[in-house]
Amino acid sequence: MVLVRYPPNKNLKGHKLVSILPSFTPSDEEVAGLKQQYPGLEILIANSRAEVTKEDWQDATILATGFNQDGLPHKDDVPNLQYVQLSSAGANLITSDPLYTDTDVAFCTANGVHGPQIAEWIIATFLAFQHEIPAYLEQQKQGQWIRRTQPVYDAVKQRVGILGYGSIGRQTARVAKAMGMDVYAYTLHERKTPESKRDTSYAPPGLGDPDGSLPSKWFYGDSTRELHAFLGSGLDLLIVAMPLTPKTTGLIGKAEFEVLKANKTFVTNIARGPIIKTDDLIEALDHGLIRGAALDVTDPEPLPDGHPLWFAKNVIITPHISAASTSYFDRLWEIVKLNLRNLSRGKDLLNQVNRTEGY
Amino acid sequence: MVLVRYPPNKNLKGHKLVSILPSFTPSDEEVAGLKQQYPGLEILIANSRAEVTKEDWQDATILATGFNQDGLPHKDDVPNLQYVQLSSAGANLITSDPLYTDTDVAFCTANGVHGPQIAEWIIATFLAFQHEIPAYLEQQKQGQWIRRTQPVYDAVKQRVGILGYGSIGRQTARVAKAMGMDVYAYTLHERKTPESKRDTSYAPPGLGDPDGSLPSKWFYGDSTRELHAFLGSGLDLLIVAMPLTPKTTGLIGKAEFEVLKANKTFVTNIARGPIIKTDDLIEALDHGLIRGAALDVTDPEPLPDGHPLWFAKNVIITPHISAASTSYFDRLWEIVKLNLRNLSRGKDLLNQVNRTEGY
Repeated sequence: MVLVRYPPNKNLKGHKLVSILPSFTPSDEEVAGLKQQYPGLEILIANSRAEVTKEDWQDATILATGFNQDGLPHKDDVPNLQYVQLSSAGANLITSDPLYTDTDVAFCTANGVHGPQIAEWIIATFLAFQHEIPAYLEQQKQGQWIRRTQPVYDAVKQRVGILGYGSIGRQTARVAKAMGMDVYAYTLHERKTPESKRDTSYAPPGLGDPDGSLPSKWFYGDSTRELHAFLGSGLDLLIVAMPLTPKTTGLIGKAEFEVLKANKTFVTNIARGPIIKTDDLIEALDHGLIRGAALDVTDPEPLPDGHPLWFAKNVIITPHISAASTSYFDRLWEIVKLNLRNLSRGKDLLNQVNRTEGY
Repeated sequence: MVLVRYPPNKNLKGHKLVSILPSFTPSDEEVAGLKQQYPGLEILIANSRAEVTKEDWQDATILATGFNQDGLPHKDDVPNLQYVQLSSAGANLITSDPLYTDTDVAFCTANGVHGPQIAEWIIATFLAFQHEIPAYLEQQKQGQWIRRTQPVYDAVKQRVGILGYGSIGRQTARVAKAMGMDVYAYTLHERKTPESKRDTSYAPPGLGDPDGSLPSKWFYGDSTRELHAFLGSGLDLLIVAMPLTPKTTGLIGKAEFEVLKANKTFVTNIARGPIIKTDDLIEALDHGLIRGAALDVTDPEPLPDGHPLWFAKNVIITPHISAASTSYFDRLWEIVKLNLRNLSRGKDLLNQVNRTEGY
C-alpha cells in the first residue's frame, strides 16, 4: 500500500478547501460549523471551475470535484494541493491525468456512497421476482383478484453468494442476513486475518459489514476452478459486484451457467455489463439454467431498443440507475468531513487511491 | 395471563402426538429422531381426520391440526388431550368450539411463522415503489432504455412506523434497520420494562426482534390523540400490522390521512382490509395526501373486478398472498418441536392462547 501521509494539523492551519460539486452546495451552517471546528481552514464553495480564480487555486490544498464536469486543474496551477476528493467511486478517469501521474497529491474516491441504494435495488428486484410482483402488477392493471397457485420461497436459509465483497456487497449482505439468508463472499485475494476482512472504505454509520463478519464462508482466487467452486456452492442468489478489469471481462459465460444450473441460481448484475457474456446469459435464461436475472447493467449499454435480452425469460432490466440517490452528495460530503478530521489528526485519508494498484 | 401448565415429563411418557396437517408430512428421519429423543412419545402422522380411529383419539395427548380442513375432534372423544397446535396464526376460529370453551386443553397458534415472508412482501413492495420498478418493467416490455429523471430516496435515515409490533412488525423492523431506517413502534399497551418489550411468541432463530430493542421510540395507547401523535411523528413508511378488532375497524380514515399528509407517508397494509376505510384511502391516494400504498388486504375482500381501488394512484395491490410460503409448515413443525421440549421440561408452551384475552 503506497499512501500519501500528512502530519497532524489540528486547526487545519494554512488549508483551503475548494468545493466544485455542481449538484451539491453545503449549507451556510455546515460551512460555518467546519470553520469553527477548524479555525485555520478557508472554504470556497463554487458551482463551476469558471468561478475559481488563479489566485484561489494558488493556495488551495483540498479540492472536492467530479472529473466529468470540468476536468481537473492543471498541476502547475495548484502547487499546494494535498488532497483531491473525487465524486465518483472509480478512479479510472483520472489515472492518466498529470495531476495524478506527476504529483503525489492524495486522491480519494466516493467509494461507499453507493452501498445503500444499490443494495436496495438488489433486494427490491430479487424479492419482487420471488414474490411474483411483476405478475401481480399485470393483474392489477386488469383489476383482477387472482391468486397465483405456488407459495413463495422466502429468503430464510437461502444462500446468497457475493462475487466481489466491497461496499455494495457488504451492505447487501447486511440486509440479506437480516432476512435470514446465509452469506458467502468471494474476493480476488484471500481474506484470512480479521484485518484483511475489514472494510477500509467509507460506509454510512451502522451499515455495511465493517469487520467482514457476515459471511459464513469466504472464497477467493482468480482461477476458473476457484470460481466454479464458489458458483457451485449451493447459491440461490448470485450477486456480481466486482470491478470490470481485463480479468473479469466475460467471467460469467456458458461454462459458469452450467455450474449455476445445479441450483438454478438467480443472477444479479449491478457491476458492469461485460462481466457477463450476453448471448450466454440469454440462453441460460431461455433454457431455464438459471431461475432468472436482475440487471442494472448490460452489454452493450445502453441496451439497444428491441435487443433480445429485453425479452429473455424471467429477466428484470433497468437502465443503469441503481446508484442514483438523493443522498449521494450528502454521503460524499461525509467523506470530505471525515477526511478533514483525518488531516487534522495526521491520520490516513479514507478512500485513498493506492497508486500502485490504481484503485 | 391464564396459561395451562403441565409438570415436567422428560421422556414424554404416556404422550401421543397426532398430526393431521394435510400439507405437511414430517420425514421418517424426523419422526425417528423425535422418538429417540422422547422414548415415551407415540407419534401418529395422518393426512386427514378419517385416518384417525376412535382408539387413536382415546390416548392422544397432543394434536397438531388446522381448523379448516376437518374441524376439531369432539371433546368427549379426546379425554386425555393436553395440547393442540393450530396451524393458523389466529385463534378466532376455535374460540367457540367446546374443545376450547369446555376444557382446559392448551391451544397454541402458529404465531411467528408468517414474519419472514410478510416482512419480505412489505420490503419488496416499498422498495419497488421507491425505485420505480413498476415503471421500469413497463419500459422493459417496450424494449426501451430510458432513465427516469429523479434519483431515488434511499431508505437510509428514513423512518418506518409499525402499528402493531408483533412477529411481522418485528421482522420488518430487523430488515428496515439493516437498510439504515429508524424504527418507531406502536402497541396498544405501554411497553416500558425490558420484560414487556420482549417477543413471547415464536420467531425463526436469529430473526425478528426478540428483545424489542430495535425501535428508537415506542408509542402506545388506544385514543385518537395517541394514534395521531404516532402518525404525525415524521413517518416515511407506515405499516399496519395489528389484529382486526372492533377497536381497530376503520381506525385509519380521513382524519388520519390528514395527519399523514405532512410527511406524505407511504402506507402498507398486510393486516386486515377493514382497518383502513377504503373510500378515504382512495381519496388520500388520488389527492396525493400520501405518496402511495401497498395492500395485500382490502375491504371488501376479494376486491371486486374493476373496483376503483385497483386504479387509485400509486397503489400496489396483491390478493392476500403475502403469508404463503413454502416454509410455512417447516416453521410450524419447529413450534411443535419446541413445545415438545417445553412439555418434557415442564415449561410454559410457546404461542399458547390466553383464555382471558382470547388470543
